[in-house]
Amino acid sequence: MKIEGRNSVLEALKSDTVTVNTLMCEKGTANTIVALARQKGVKISYVDRAVLDKASIEGRHQGYIADVTDFDYCELEEILASSDTPFIVVLDGINDPHNFGSIIRAAECAGVDGIIIGRNRQVAVTDTVTRCSAGAVSHVKIARVVNVNNAIKQLQDNGVWVYALDMDGQEIATANLTGAVAIVVGSEGDGISAYTKKCCDGVVSLKLKGKVNSLNASVACGIALYEVVRQRG
Amino acid sequence: MKIEGRNSVLEALKSDTVTVNTLMCEKGTANTIVALARQKGVKISYVDRAVLDKASIEGRHQGYIADVTDFDYCELEEILASSDTPFIVVLDGINDPHNFGSIIRAAECAGVDGIIIGRNRQVAVTDTVTRCSAGAVSHVKIARVVNVNNAIKQLQDNGVWVYALDMDGQEIATANLTGAVAIVVGSEGDGISAYTKKCCDGVVSLKLKGKVNSLNASVACGIALYEVVRQRG
Repeated sequence: MKIEGRNSVLEALKSDTVTVNTLMCEKGTANTIVALARQKGVKISYVDRAVLDKASIEGRHQGYIADVTDFDYCELEEILASSDTPFIVVLDGINDPHNFGSIIRAAECAGVDGIIIGRNRQVAVTDTVTRCSAGAVSHVKIARVVNVNNAIKQLQDNGVWVYALDMDGQEIATANLTGAVAIVVGSEGDGISAYTKKCCDGVVSLKLKGKVNSLNASVACGIALYEVVRQRG
Repeated sequence: MKIEGRNSVLEALKSDTVTVNTLMCEKGTANTIVALARQKGVKISYVDRAVLDKASIEGRHQGYIADVTDFDYCELEEILASSDTPFIVVLDGINDPHNFGSIIRAAECAGVDGIIIGRNRQVAVTDTVTRCSAGAVSHVKIARVVNVNNAIKQLQDNGVWVYALDMDGQEIATANLTGAVAIVVGSEGDGISAYTKKCCDGVVSLKLKGKVNSLNASVACGIALYEVVRQRG
């Protein structure tokens, strides 16, 4: 859906439920809107006013036209309620839409009950994410929470064992993942934030036998989820 | 061949098989990459960012562009000779360089002895593949063969059990993957070609518990390789 005008675009950028996919604005624009869009990882294109005039549907673009999606996020409680022994993925700062899409795809194949993402440092469900998920996004519950650490606490209060997927932990095959379990996957560059890792019940790791020792976030997540699938039989 | 990006250049410098001829980096750069390049006698030129931007092919140089000698494919025999119980990946028509790079990365982390690719319907080791492998390409033996089916036959003649990774096979965790083993991964769209599948000793599958039921080729490959890692202890 296209929206236009300074206020509409600004509000969409601030919104928790609407996701801004792309922003078109006039060449040379540098203000709060652009800064916020950048911060949220929105793809920005700077064009001539004539291009905006042509793309505008209502003729009131005021220099801004955005493409937005209304993804229907669920509540964390809905995910918890979907199974007696929930199987959950928590994402802590995945900012590459391809990786996020690929994780949703793997999570759907592994039969997770839901995915929990934070509002900050984390790409939302954008068009690119939807495309990269090969449609899986329509079949997985995704909750977007203000604070990932609080969400982890809430999972634990509901009997879910929360494991961080990171280096220097217990080898994943030796952990008992047969009960209610959540796997926390960190950002591509920095991994899981130190405090979030502390909030988890344990750290599970994949054996790295090479020299490079860095798996792509979505591949690592897929491997971990399928270890849960294997253990659950 | 030109490669760009921090990781790709660093791994090329560390590699035994790739030779870095020249390194172009931003003025004032002084870090591990530059130190390693100096140590290896690489000719370094310090340029303005604009020069790097102009020289960049993919627009992701991150301050480093290196000229390296072309990828040095090995012979299938070298891969077979590298272990008493070789662990091999065979690719049958992976044509997305991102997937190929990601598979190389996962294979390196899983400690495979080598990767075998065909000459047809299969992307070669290009710059994009190198970048997507996060440098892992410099540490994995890759053999490029005229005919994948003949290569499979040759593996079998040398005592390697060859499994196709595809739908409708034996659940992978129930297959014995502890000996000399090769996993064949098919193309993103069409999977493994029917004849190639017939040439294999068996078919192993990942449980698909969702509605979409299509894992990304590199994620599927990563999961399968790590099942081998798990079984081998």
